[in-house]
Amino acid sequence: MSAQYPSILLENAVNEFAKLPGIGKKTALRLVLHLLRQNSVNVENFLSAIATLKHEVKYCSLCHNISDSEVCSICSDKTRDASLVCVVENVKEVMAIEGTMQFKGLYHVLGGIISPIDGIGPSDLEIDSLVERVKTGDIKEVILALSATMEGDTTNFYIYRKLQPYDVKVSIIARGVSIGDEIEYADEVTLGRSILNRTPFDETYRLTSK
Amino acid sequence: MSAQYPSILLENAVNEFAKLPGIGKKTALRLVLHLLRQNSVNVENFLSAIATLKHEVKYCSLCHNISDSEVCSICSDKTRDASLVCVVENVKEVMAIEGTMQFKGLYHVLGGIISPIDGIGPSDLEIDSLVERVKTGDIKEVILALSATMEGDTTNFYIYRKLQPYDVKVSIIARGVSIGDEIEYADEVTLGRSILNRTPFDETYRLTSK
Ligand SMILES: [Zn+2]
Ligand SMILES: [Zn+2]
Repeated sequence: MSAQYPSILLENAVNEFAKLPGIGKKTALRLVLHLLRQNSVNVENFLSAIATLKHEVKYCSLCHNISDSEVCSICSDKTRDASLVCVVENVKEVMAIEGTMQFKGLYHVLGGIISPIDGIGPSDLEIDSLVERVKTGDIKEVILALSATMEGDTTNFYIYRKLQPYDVKVSIIARGVSIGDEIEYADEVTLGRSILNRTPFDETYRLTSK
Repeated sequence: MSAQYPSILLENAVNEFAKLPGIGKKTALRLVLHLLRQNSVNVENFLSAIATLKHEVKYCSLCHNISDSEVCSICSDKTRDASLVCVVENVKEVMAIEGTMQFKGLYHVLGGIISPIDGIGPSDLEIDSLVERVKTGDIKEVILALSATMEGDTTNFYIYRKLQPYDVKVSIIARGVSIGDEIEYADEVTLGRSILNRTPFDETYRLTSK
């Protein structure tokens, strides 16, 4: 379909939708026309839900996950094991791991993964704040639960080196999933088992112990 | 993934996105997190493009296609054949047919198709206004270019009967595409050829001529 839009307003809306990942021009047009058919209240609800999230989003001061309060509901849950911290890339992975019902510790959300191609270095991620949490001495074990990709490995090694000076066990979730798979697409059973079967980081990568 | 959102604001935004056709919860979460990572100006552009379209959208007073002006650019193009009107469901089909470069008449956009299941009857569509256009006597031929579905057939017959009292030829685009296919997914070559090979409506459906 050659895109000859009969209206600039329509074209602008389609182009904005098509900037979203995985949304082509044709899908964008369908979504925009769907919104046009809705009544004004529905469209207003759609727009304000996004605007409100964007303007008012907060991040937990401890784990840096998205949260509506200063400290998130997971970090403030006293029944959870605060000596166990699972390091993840993003809120999607927190939700995926929570879905397995296999983990009762806390999280640390990096906000991404080291990726030189995308210009994301360690200082763009919540790594220093992880080290600060470990420095308090309250954390006995840090579980690395990043994607089994090259970027995940790079980030794993970086964090491992940063934590070596401290008295903390660093483990990594069992690689039950094929190399190259992303955590968020893993099924819950596999993901749950890989947390239970986590292995010490240095054994996993056969590092010489210092 | 069990959906346990760490934030009501996040959950609301995801739920709104997931109301769009073909967008599941998982895709919605990915789109929302993508918007969260964008700077405020980009998100503002996204929201205002949709809000502006919704608030300011106009429809051509002649053909009822989406338009930024009172009369759309196609209807006001004096080089086009105003005696030939192609009846389509929606703006998507106008764009698809324009993309074929095979049609130089005008359009009439119904705004949908007769569908009792969806509660859409003839009075919800721009059918009366089509009859009014034909009544002026300026139109020699009406080409029906609706989807080759049961709903399309119902709408074709309804319009055909409505136009029978008037001195106008009613034709239907050649069914080059398989029965059940929707016009908007047809490739341009097939669609262009089916317009060139249009056949008289009554011959196509073997109606007894009155
Ligand atoms: Zn937290
Ligand atoms: Zn028009």
